[in-house]
Amino acid sequence: MKVVTIGGGSSYTPEFVEGLINRYEELPVKELWLVDIEEGKEKLEIVGHLAKRMVEKANVPMTIYLTLDRQKALKGADFVTTQMRVGQLDARILDERLPLKYGMIGQETNGAGGLFKGLRTIPVLLDIADEMNQLCPDAWLINFTNPAGMVTEALLRYGRHDKVIGVCNLPVNIRMTIAKLLNVEEERVHIDFAGLNHMVYGIDVFVDGVSVLDHVLELMSCPEKQMSMRNIAPLPWDADFIRSLGVIPCPYHRYYYKKDEILEKELEEYETGVTRAEVVQKLEGELFELYKDEELKVKPPQLEQRGGAYYSDAACNLMSSIFNDRGDIQTLNVRNDSAIKDLPSESAVEVNCVVTKSGPKPITVGHLPVAINGLIQQIKSFERIAAEAAVTGSYEKALLAMTINPLITSDIKAKSLLNDMLEAHKKYLPQFKERIYITL
Amino acid sequence: MKVVTIGGGSSYTPEFVEGLINRYEELPVKELWLVDIEEGKEKLEIVGHLAKRMVEKANVPMTIYLTLDRQKALKGADFVTTQMRVGQLDARILDERLPLKYGMIGQETNGAGGLFKGLRTIPVLLDIADEMNQLCPDAWLINFTNPAGMVTEALLRYGRHDKVIGVCNLPVNIRMTIAKLLNVEEERVHIDFAGLNHMVYGIDVFVDGVSVLDHVLELMSCPEKQMSMRNIAPLPWDADFIRSLGVIPCPYHRYYYKKDEILEKELEEYETGVTRAEVVQKLEGELFELYKDEELKVKPPQLEQRGGAYYSDAACNLMSSIFNDRGDIQTLNVRNDSAIKDLPSESAVEVNCVVTKSGPKPITVGHLPVAINGLIQQIKSFERIAAEAAVTGSYEKALLAMTINPLITSDIKAKSLLNDMLEAHKKYLPQFKERIYITL
Amino acid sequence: MKVVTIGGGSSYTPEFVEGLINRYEELPVKELWLVDIEEGKEKLEIVGHLAKRMVEKANVPMTIYLTLDRQKALKGADFVTTQMRVGQLDARILDERLPLKYGMIGQETNGAGGLFKGLRTIPVLLDIADEMNQLCPDAWLINFTNPAGMVTEALLRYGRHDKVIGVCNLPVNIRMTIAKLLNVEEERVHIDFAGLNHMVYGIDVFVDGVSVLDHVLELMSCPEKQMSMRNIAPLPWDADFIRSLGVIPCPYHRYYYKKDEILEKELEEYETGVTRAEVVQKLEGELFELYKDEELKVKPPQLEQRGGAYYSDAACNLMSSIFNDRGDIQTLNVRNDSAIKDLPSESAVEVNCVVTKSGPKPITVGHLPVAINGLIQQIKSFERIAAEAAVTGSYEKALLAMTINPLITSDIKAKSLLNDMLEAHKKYLPQFKERIYITL
Amino acid sequence: MKVVTIGGGSSYTPEFVEGLINRYEELPVKELWLVDIEEGKEKLEIVGHLAKRMVEKANVPMTIYLTLDRQKALKGADFVTTQMRVGQLDARILDERLPLKYGMIGQETNGAGGLFKGLRTIPVLLDIADEMNQLCPDAWLINFTNPAGMVTEALLRYGRHDKVIGVCNLPVNIRMTIAKLLNVEEERVHIDFAGLNHMVYGIDVFVDGVSVLDHVLELMSCPEKQMSMRNIAPLPWDADFIRSLGVIPCPYHRYYYKKDEILEKELEEYETGVTRAEVVQKLEGELFELYKDEELKVKPPQLEQRGGAYYSDAACNLMSSIFNDRGDIQTLNVRNDSAIKDLPSESAVEVNCVVTKSGPKPITVGHLPVAINGLIQQIKSFERIAAEAAVTGSYEKALLAMTINPLITSDIKAKSLLNDMLEAHKKYLPQFKERIYITL
Repeated sequence: MKVVTIGGGSSYTPEFVEGLINRYEELPVKELWLVDIEEGKEKLEIVGHLAKRMVEKANVPMTIYLTLDRQKALKGADFVTTQMRVGQLDARILDERLPLKYGMIGQETNGAGGLFKGLRTIPVLLDIADEMNQLCPDAWLINFTNPAGMVTEALLRYGRHDKVIGVCNLPVNIRMTIAKLLNVEEERVHIDFAGLNHMVYGIDVFVDGVSVLDHVLELMSCPEKQMSMRNIAPLPWDADFIRSLGVIPCPYHRYYYKKDEILEKELEEYETGVTRAEVVQKLEGELFELYKDEELKVKPPQLEQRGGAYYSDAACNLMSSIFNDRGDIQTLNVRNDSAIKDLPSESAVEVNCVVTKSGPKPITVGHLPVAINGLIQQIKSFERIAAEAAVTGSYEKALLAMTINPLITSDIKAKSLLNDMLEAHKKYLPQFKERIYITL
Repeated sequence: MKVVTIGGGSSYTPEFVEGLINRYEELPVKELWLVDIEEGKEKLEIVGHLAKRMVEKANVPMTIYLTLDRQKALKGADFVTTQMRVGQLDARILDERLPLKYGMIGQETNGAGGLFKGLRTIPVLLDIADEMNQLCPDAWLINFTNPAGMVTEALLRYGRHDKVIGVCNLPVNIRMTIAKLLNVEEERVHIDFAGLNHMVYGIDVFVDGVSVLDHVLELMSCPEKQMSMRNIAPLPWDADFIRSLGVIPCPYHRYYYKKDEILEKELEEYETGVTRAEVVQKLEGELFELYKDEELKVKPPQLEQRGGAYYSDAACNLMSSIFNDRGDIQTLNVRNDSAIKDLPSESAVEVNCVVTKSGPKPITVGHLPVAINGLIQQIKSFERIAAEAAVTGSYEKALLAMTINPLITSDIKAKSLLNDMLEAHKKYLPQFKERIYITL
Repeated sequence: MKVVTIGGGSSYTPEFVEGLINRYEELPVKELWLVDIEEGKEKLEIVGHLAKRMVEKANVPMTIYLTLDRQKALKGADFVTTQMRVGQLDARILDERLPLKYGMIGQETNGAGGLFKGLRTIPVLLDIADEMNQLCPDAWLINFTNPAGMVTEALLRYGRHDKVIGVCNLPVNIRMTIAKLLNVEEERVHIDFAGLNHMVYGIDVFVDGVSVLDHVLELMSCPEKQMSMRNIAPLPWDADFIRSLGVIPCPYHRYYYKKDEILEKELEEYETGVTRAEVVQKLEGELFELYKDEELKVKPPQLEQRGGAYYSDAACNLMSSIFNDRGDIQTLNVRNDSAIKDLPSESAVEVNCVVTKSGPKPITVGHLPVAINGLIQQIKSFERIAAEAAVTGSYEKALLAMTINPLITSDIKAKSLLNDMLEAHKKYLPQFKERIYITL
Repeated sequence: MKVVTIGGGSSYTPEFVEGLINRYEELPVKELWLVDIEEGKEKLEIVGHLAKRMVEKANVPMTIYLTLDRQKALKGADFVTTQMRVGQLDARILDERLPLKYGMIGQETNGAGGLFKGLRTIPVLLDIADEMNQLCPDAWLINFTNPAGMVTEALLRYGRHDKVIGVCNLPVNIRMTIAKLLNVEEERVHIDFAGLNHMVYGIDVFVDGVSVLDHVLELMSCPEKQMSMRNIAPLPWDADFIRSLGVIPCPYHRYYYKKDEILEKELEEYETGVTRAEVVQKLEGELFELYKDEELKVKPPQLEQRGGAYYSDAACNLMSSIFNDRGDIQTLNVRNDSAIKDLPSESAVEVNCVVTKSGPKPITVGHLPVAINGLIQQIKSFERIAAEAAVTGSYEKALLAMTINPLITSDIKAKSLLNDMLEAHKKYLPQFKERIYITL
């Protein structure tokens, strides 16, 4: 079996390699190709050598290949994972800071920042899908590049490769957190997830097959028991709101239900120069210093501080279920088909799927609860227009996507912000080169 | 023919009476019953006597009845129009000012203000529908009480009387404005409207049957040519945004696409004590002074300054089309059925309908343009929860409706604001009497 | 205005010309191009000269052109009507007789016969649509070639010209019949039609806007008051069945609800050599003899005996409503969009439409009554596969369409019949030339 | 755990008891209550004593109770299975013979026979559901009484107990047959089933997760390799038709795609007095003679000849998966929700489900293939009207259900047949007592 990881120089790679090592018996990967681009060559070397040391120490017959030649790597692959950051963390800093300049929330995968991460990332992923269609038509593309919702939407609507799955660590993390909250083993907890990436809700929660949703909602009313994530300020939910919502929100929902509190927090960070991207940049620097250590032969524990834990784990699990035709249930970003009645068949959704050798099949959700349908629809409309903008390089579509996003508070500011961000990111937005920014 | 107007003491009544007088030949109303409640008795007397003088001067054989006995009035009616303001303008002042206290937009039919107008109004309308079902089962209920979207939603889902139509003057006004913009006679202009009340878009515009949408969008890019309304600040749209939207927004859309600018304007008015409700209250006082004048025997021209012009005209037109089985096209709030594919069959929508004796039948819209689907869905979800809250008196549903409204920016502020507004309006919210406001 | 009639040599043409003459003031057609193919040249000459005499006698400034050059005719057209019979009446005789050989109903537009008429006709119509897209992109294609349902389905799904409307005289005839049944003027009767071509039901019936459906169903229980048509045996409906159905069936529904009685009747005709096609062939011969008479300068009354009366009238009415942006309601075959909730948006349906200059817009039907949904779905599935077979020339799709048709009673007989009919019609089925008929 | 089997005197019960014995470790049923009615008392005694001997011999601690007191049995149950035959085999003989008298297919679960089996059975099942709602609200009702599609439809739409699942042995049998055809172990074969009960198709077939659909279709083209069942004549499919259908039909589809051949076969059996029911009646007599043998302490091998093999196995499997929260995939009759996009959410469908402690959740099917959508829709419409007729006792609805059934060939014969069958079965159709049969 041949696995290709595009963006192989990522600081997450050691977790992925560890996952493959631990699962070697069920998922015998003979070749792991780590691919990166010229700009990422140094990081690829560092991470790649750590990976080789890990494999050697674990004594599994997996060969690690490091390359900048993507097409060579893709040829004959069985699985391709993608985990890149077009423009690297410098671009993320801009995604976070520029909206704040206009008094609007700046975030990696939401609002204006999410839109621009999508605009930069989607064309690259579509190119990869094209190449896969030529070079490894039977391989699965397992994307965990953010914004995974927008990216999967674009791959499903505009891509030439059908076997595409978006993976996120959020559902796994929510399940863990709820298991802890309930003080039961994780395996006993099952959650019916439905929604979009970073916009997913737990519609029902079961322990040993018995619904405990009301109890979980009650527990979640205590601020100290609420889930949070490293990249999101742990602002407490209003207890009555959680009860009235009737389903489990995900941490990212704070951006929509707690706009004021999030914005206040972010403006503080903006002033002090420690937005999340800046924190992460520092962390990554430290991680790569660690990785360089020739004595390091395992995934260093510090990586878990990084924020994206379990991403690679989720990807390994998925590959193993496909390879072994396992038929277990995983929460994935896939074509909706008829899973969620209120959303288009062709769109990407994040739902529970049965995973077999022929890929994931979504389990029926039916109608979304009214309480959450509106917001999910709004984000899906945004994602569709954003994907169209990314593919066409249309200034108008980009402006439309920006303005209808619920974190944007003014059409006029939307345009100024759009113009600023197009300018700031222009190196990574070749499709927009013929834009005319200003009407008047 | 017998017409009953509930909220007969409204300052708009003279326009309605004028409409009936002018249409007497096509719509021979023999009895017009103006009904009001004890609190509105004085206004009913003033307006009612003006109405009688108007009818006498016009020399049409229509008898005006003034009464506080609603059931007596409803008996045997052919058409019932409803135009009330539960809690009168004092309540509207609170609807506008209380949200602003929390830094959120305060408005009569949108956001927290709209929600509370709905909570006060819906139970009264449902009572009227119940009585109609008993006393005049074949009569049409023509509602122009705001928030007409939420009210029609509640009447369709929870009411016992099926023959219900919501009327708004907005589509008529937009058509007039666009006719002026194009410099053609109004009759030559046709607009395909679709959406919800105060959330309606012109999907296409025709002159003599030929689409001129792009031209209208181009004209609307000039700030000085943009539609506005007396009750909405005439803040200009961004020209590129209008083009990218690709459909005609209504003036109320400023609350959603220009939140910052609207809020700034409103906060100014808040400080200076001249919110729209306060302006209207003053205007109404002046109007009633005019109405008292025994020499006044026609609708005074000052009424047009009031803001709701053409409401009664729209209602008269509708009654006439039904009565005469006319088969013309009007934009109305009706059960969606399959008109808009993306919205529930049972929900109220504002769409073009063919109006015959058997009532309005919506013309097919198909899928909404992606650009507007998200926002419309969000408002519809809000309206559904709001209607449920109004009917059940559930604190949780009210909190949920408030928090998911796109003009609300924080779950925690939503709860404080909800509590304040429940307290301020408690006289008009008997269904909420057993609520417990605070969790902690 | 330039109108082009393809299949101009049809015996119906004098009715069409009469329609244009009578409507000249509202629909000033300057040029009428009658187009036919080499095989139809003689009939074109005969009919064309009658048309010229009619126009001359009526003294309207309309010029008649006769041509075999379709592309020349199409250039710059405003309306194109199509009324052809690929393979002429000889092919129809085969369509009727071959199924009867296998003990299955043979009919022009239903069952195996309808399928083969579709297979012969659809490619020709698609060619015309292609040419229109090049030569007169703004013109409307008004098709009254049968099977109009299948043909419109194919034009909407596979054609390159969007402005397509299918017209049938059936709804007009049903309305007339019901008006007579009720003894009221036709203009006072309105019927809510819904379904597919030759599979359309009257969902509700109104006189002066008041529903009289139950009364009509009661009247229709009397066998002597039931509608029939020249081409369908007037077999009476079971009175209780009509009541239980709850909607008005069309005469063609006898093929589905009275299979046994129809088949018995047809087998009789088969034996005696007077199937409908054979009757019509004789009638047409007589008509053309009449048409040759140089003294004949009007539509001869005998034409009404022919069976398709009011077809051309329906087409003229439609053109006039479009030209004059009239906004009246007509029953047409158009893209479903969201009119009938249970059918695909892209499919052709026969429903009431508002007709304006921008074309017909269907009025909302919502869900079909359960009683009729099943049969309509079955015919629509058949039409979709049949259209696919016609376009692709796939033997398998043709076999599938044949076998799933509800008038076909065996997969094995379906194949034998298919093979026979492919052989018999091969001259007109060039797309099937590479078929392999037999598996074993 | 307490299991209740209504219709406990059925000849199938030994298979069910064997299933429980074999699964005792995973599904520890402490009490098995076999319930029957007065008419079935003797059979209950015979079967019940065999069951006791089986349990004793197997030495499992399960107690068998025999009772005619249904309510006593239901109290506190965990699972209730229903396997009755209202009117016993004598009624089935009528269901098969009466339609044949009119030249129409007579069958237990299809056509007129299936309709009447539904009319007799549904009210009894609804009563059981009502009692369960009172006496064991948390128990699952697992129905394998035919016609399971119609019955599940009625239970879902009109019943007061939500936890309802319909089970059929057909999908299990098809899987076995295909495994044999492919010569692989059954466990390696997975089939995506979709449709309705006895109207289910294999949309795709996998071996070890790899699609082998085309290969299976190819194999099925050989008449000798086609599936058949004891109760359906093994008439071969046309090879080309199977290929063109593109999905795996079930044996019952012969009634729809091979009407002529089936009818011919049945008319033969009719003449010779050996319709299927008559054969089964004889077999059952022999089985009960065997069951009486005190030395018999296991399920006798002759039972497998009976025809319904694996029914009880399917039921035991289902109970075990629910009890053990197993999460495996089974093909069940459940509420559609959004599994099959083309069918109503509220309707019963037969689809693959993930089975957990909280019951079965259907896996997404999306749109049905066009080739099969029409027939499935038609049967679903029939089932809906049939269920309504069964619940209301409306003569009109019964006539409508009969006439729209695709195996019925004439409205007039439909009425005569309906009248005959209502008369013949009147003892078991109390809900129809006030009918008026004849209009004229």
